[in-house]
Amino acid sequence: MDSLARAAGPEAVTAIGNVGDDLEFLGLHVSPDLDTVLYTLAGLLDEERGWGVRDETYNALALARELGAEAWFTLGDRDIGLHLVRTAWLRSGLPLSEAMGRLAEALRVGVRLLPATDDRLRTKIGTADGELDFQEWFVARGHSDNVTGVRYEGAEAAAPAPGVLEAVEAAELVVIAPSNPFVSILPILAVPGIREAVAAKRVAAISPLVGGKAFRGPLAEMLISLGHEASPAGTAEVYGDLVDVLVVAPGDSGPAGAVTCDIDMVAPERREDVGRKLLEALL
Amino acid sequence: MDSLARAAGPEAVTAIGNVGDDLEFLGLHVSPDLDTVLYTLAGLLDEERGWGVRDETYNALALARELGAEAWFTLGDRDIGLHLVRTAWLRSGLPLSEAMGRLAEALRVGVRLLPATDDRLRTKIGTADGELDFQEWFVARGHSDNVTGVRYEGAEAAAPAPGVLEAVEAAELVVIAPSNPFVSILPILAVPGIREAVAAKRVAAISPLVGGKAFRGPLAEMLISLGHEASPAGTAEVYGDLVDVLVVAPGDSGPAGAVTCDIDMVAPERREDVGRKLLEALL
Repeated sequence: MDSLARAAGPEAVTAIGNVGDDLEFLGLHVSPDLDTVLYTLAGLLDEERGWGVRDETYNALALARELGAEAWFTLGDRDIGLHLVRTAWLRSGLPLSEAMGRLAEALRVGVRLLPATDDRLRTKIGTADGELDFQEWFVARGHSDNVTGVRYEGAEAAAPAPGVLEAVEAAELVVIAPSNPFVSILPILAVPGIREAVAAKRVAAISPLVGGKAFRGPLAEMLISLGHEASPAGTAEVYGDLVDVLVVAPGDSGPAGAVTCDIDMVAPERREDVGRKLLEALL
Repeated sequence: MDSLARAAGPEAVTAIGNVGDDLEFLGLHVSPDLDTVLYTLAGLLDEERGWGVRDETYNALALARELGAEAWFTLGDRDIGLHLVRTAWLRSGLPLSEAMGRLAEALRVGVRLLPATDDRLRTKIGTADGELDFQEWFVARGHSDNVTGVRYEGAEAAAPAPGVLEAVEAAELVVIAPSNPFVSILPILAVPGIREAVAAKRVAAISPLVGGKAFRGPLAEMLISLGHEASPAGTAEVYGDLVDVLVVAPGDSGPAGAVTCDIDMVAPERREDVGRKLLEALL
């Protein structure tokens, strides 16, 4: 996302983000995926860790825990400041998409950042211990449970957020970020209308695996436990014929028609260059 | 409060606190009076300032303001941690009195701390610009408006919190703290049943004025604008025959029957001694 925005200019990019891992914690509405994108584009992300705000303090949570708050989720002080503002907006009736628009504007983020839906959609993880909330599985239990299935609760009744279908329809290219398909991409595509709109466009997916390892998180294990190969080809299989071209890292082999490109966009200083080469290869 | 708790032992003291200046800010339930007592007894108070937590940071509020939050009320990060926990408890249906009990226990405060009521009671300040919410008058407008009247909205329908009447009835002595009568004490006494229970006991009030000046806040101005003298006698007049004995500082004159005692309890290291002398004089 940041790579493309740096290469093409932020106004040329619309980011559509996942809300399946949203949660209520301490009465706050938290949108981890959207916020990671927002903080990245605003230059606020803790890039070392890949989530939360850099140079963060944790004084609110420390006292809250001393007073008996659940300890399993971590929120920094500045992060809490954002959650307080957004939660108040949502309680007053503002849709999530408008709330994200306000936050992006206040943080001078040029990319348009939209949640896939303003409706409630939650990713549920099937395990041997039964179905778990996404964050319960991911954070509270440290994604140590083998995944037997994934379900997007509320997806069938959800509508795309205002602007999502229009942005897809107007796009020259849809790029699927190198995220975990099951927990970050498929919950977006599960909102009725989005998959169809995406399927009508030229779609490139960046492989989330390089040398068999995910940029972040337990994707390799999930691919295997859900019956796929932990490889770019295994990832492409998950998307099926939705994706026209898979972009793989040099040295990795992909399915037929895969494009090889430097996709290591973890370091911020590499992103503009990676973005330019991606656009050259794909447009 | 802290003086008496240090002198008599915390388990001998029940503190009944005002909720008339409670507010909702950024979706958080804030109880400034109760929290000042709680933080004082827990050794967490910023004693210089007289409110909030010492060695506090303000990172959550700073980001919230950058994102468009109202800027008129100040909450520190640790303070926000407490408000998050209490607000979640209140939303889940816990009465304020039970919430305060849990907080006091978690912070190892031995004094029993009760709100006057679990019901909604709000102090409203009459001014030439119309009636203002207490915090609007006090914080947002810096108590610069002349006070023409004070009203305790919701008081008539409010019930004493569980334990309040029992604590008063069981008390050997009721001590009215040297607070502003109009905005800290009368809203407690406005809850039906509390004034009657207090009137049946021996009641001492500590003068909130020393040398014509309040320990904190705009009491002298309020006494005058509401038709009283800015003096211990003026304060006694506000309480009428509820108070059996007024305690005034050496050098101040009080109404007939006033007791003179060192009441300067601002500095924490003086409090135990002040408390002992008060109890000697009053019991």
